[in-house]
Amino acid sequence: MSDGVNAFVPGVDVRVEGAGGGPLAGMTFAAKDLFDVAGVPTGAGNPDWQRQHPVPDRHAWAVQTLLDAGATLIGKTITDEVSLGILGENPFHGTPLNSAAPERVPGGSSSGSAAAVAAGLCDFAIGSDTGGSVRVPASFCGLYGIRPTHGRLDSSGLLPQAPSSDTTGWFARDAGTLAKVSAVMLGEAIPSALPTRLIVALDAFGFADEGTRAALRPSVEKLGALIGEVREEIMAPQGLSVWGRAQRALQPAEAWSTFKDWIDRENPRLAFNVARGLLAGSMVSEVDLQWAALMRREARARLEYLLAPGTILCLPTTPFPAPRKGLPLDRQNRIRERILCLCAHGGLAGLPQLSLPGAAVEGAPVGLSILAARDADATLVAVAKAMEDS
Amino acid sequence: MSDGVNAFVPGVDVRVEGAGGGPLAGMTFAAKDLFDVAGVPTGAGNPDWQRQHPVPDRHAWAVQTLLDAGATLIGKTITDEVSLGILGENPFHGTPLNSAAPERVPGGSSSGSAAAVAAGLCDFAIGSDTGGSVRVPASFCGLYGIRPTHGRLDSSGLLPQAPSSDTTGWFARDAGTLAKVSAVMLGEAIPSALPTRLIVALDAFGFADEGTRAALRPSVEKLGALIGEVREEIMAPQGLSVWGRAQRALQPAEAWSTFKDWIDRENPRLAFNVARGLLAGSMVSEVDLQWAALMRREARARLEYLLAPGTILCLPTTPFPAPRKGLPLDRQNRIRERILCLCAHGGLAGLPQLSLPGAAVEGAPVGLSILAARDADATLVAVAKAMEDS
Repeated sequence: MSDGVNAFVPGVDVRVEGAGGGPLAGMTFAAKDLFDVAGVPTGAGNPDWQRQHPVPDRHAWAVQTLLDAGATLIGKTITDEVSLGILGENPFHGTPLNSAAPERVPGGSSSGSAAAVAAGLCDFAIGSDTGGSVRVPASFCGLYGIRPTHGRLDSSGLLPQAPSSDTTGWFARDAGTLAKVSAVMLGEAIPSALPTRLIVALDAFGFADEGTRAALRPSVEKLGALIGEVREEIMAPQGLSVWGRAQRALQPAEAWSTFKDWIDRENPRLAFNVARGLLAGSMVSEVDLQWAALMRREARARLEYLLAPGTILCLPTTPFPAPRKGLPLDRQNRIRERILCLCAHGGLAGLPQLSLPGAAVEGAPVGLSILAARDADATLVAVAKAMEDS
Repeated sequence: MSDGVNAFVPGVDVRVEGAGGGPLAGMTFAAKDLFDVAGVPTGAGNPDWQRQHPVPDRHAWAVQTLLDAGATLIGKTITDEVSLGILGENPFHGTPLNSAAPERVPGGSSSGSAAAVAAGLCDFAIGSDTGGSVRVPASFCGLYGIRPTHGRLDSSGLLPQAPSSDTTGWFARDAGTLAKVSAVMLGEAIPSALPTRLIVALDAFGFADEGTRAALRPSVEKLGALIGEVREEIMAPQGLSVWGRAQRALQPAEAWSTFKDWIDRENPRLAFNVARGLLAGSMVSEVDLQWAALMRREARARLEYLLAPGTILCLPTTPFPAPRKGLPLDRQNRIRERILCLCAHGGLAGLPQLSLPGAAVEGAPVGLSILAARDADATLVAVAKAMEDS
């Protein structure tokens, strides 16, 4: 079924039928291999991790919730190793296909989930987003993808990475499916009323490549027409790169703390770049961490100020479409750092964000993101649906 | 043949008959998987390296020289990844058996070569020693092992790691075999005359565990009786840990420079600790490197001063016998740093060193090393032979 797509973890076959008659009856989904499925190993994208951890005996909350709502689980999907990666290239499992741009990476770390949905192998898929791991593959594969309000969903049975930033998220090819899944996951009906004010994040558009910025203009105009009042604002007065720097202290330091006992005990095999990222996390200074915690407060305050009730903000999900596969590491790292600057607010502020198909640049998709106040997740879904309908 | 020993690289079968009638006719040997054998991949202990490099079309100089002398090559042996490791645990290929102490590591990086000789799978084996990779496994497995004068042997077809420290070396179970192989490799007859002065390196014995120091005493006394004049001296007035620090700047920095293009191009899978070592090499400051180069000069001058003609120096090869297998990384790293302090003079000064079976501590072997002036390699072999004969 996944032939040629390489979305699913090799050697791990799983199918769990959904409960009869729920709101997602008849739909199929896949789960990133960070979510526990009872009786199936959780591999986290790394064969040593898989071998060195017990097989879970219960489903993750997200998996159970979707099964209870009637959806059928059809597979566990490839992820960047221990969710550390934003491009979606895993040397153990290979790179899942980006059906929308086959020569390019799918984005990560929820690479296989995005690939499975993009290739039509299932109706939707769940992933996780710590530093961009749902938003980026959604952008690169031309999908709808949501990162909900941090802390809103039960994360039991989801392998943590950096808990103060980790969220569950999901992908769909169309806004109607996204809405159905979102209603179940959020436990809340999707409203019909839309926000009335749109902020266009000038600095974020300025941070994107010129071609991407230009290509997204029609989507932004369409969104503005739908919402009504449009205002341009600087999202990060301190600088997107400064927000990026704060998040690039907090997240790797937490990831190191999550994985260091495993590493010390098992000396696992990791792609060089993954080991380098973990080590970077081990070397973040206390001074940097303290500063980053303060910048997180300031970023939160800024976004709370901007995102008054009835307001959403839009920005490019990524500064460019997916890069080519197999780039040298040095080049990959520079690309990653730029992407993370446009994603850092997610981990810093924990606000809900939805990436919707925004444009094509040189034939490859790039997403437009909308951001709302805490717990206004359903409003973002409503906007996505209205955008698709209009 | 290697069942239970795990000395040979899995999946790589090789046998090359020696030329008829040479001085090593009828003998068998194995080569660390850093040496090229025509038509066989050179894996360097890492499957990604093996896959990403062309199969060599000629034998390494050392292999060719031994074949020409009549020895038959029977296998390529497991090494720590890209020769970075001193304990001999390779997660891709497993840990070769230390036949002399099966619960303990064999030592590395020439782990499989030492294991093959210790288990009697071949008469002798070649390895390489940059920071201790022949000396340490010889000590841990109870073998004779020699690190010749740096730069004396042709290193063509040997994968470099840190060229200013890299040497070819070899292991044997008895001094007679060692002498035969050494005469071929050194291109020089083993003399019958012995040195007349023995220096006992007080600081090096002081650096060893008390049990190891005590256990080696009879061997040191026997050696003293054989040589005649015995004098106690400090080998490293600046401190063995200071020499260690200098070598721990020079070697990792050179190793990074050797492997960085491969890493950038391929993002290879490596055990975490190997990636960490390479990254440490990438972060050595210019100030540290410059200081280390000066300390190298001082270490060379010190050993040249001590090792006047007719003089050898003895020291424990390792500060203790082989540690247990599978220790946590943090513990491994502390053990490694202590071992490397007793090995640093090898890379710093490039003098020939021979480790001979010295004692047993808690049932596990530990080596006694003898060190001589540049190009006095054959003298060391003569001493080993006289020790065995006496």
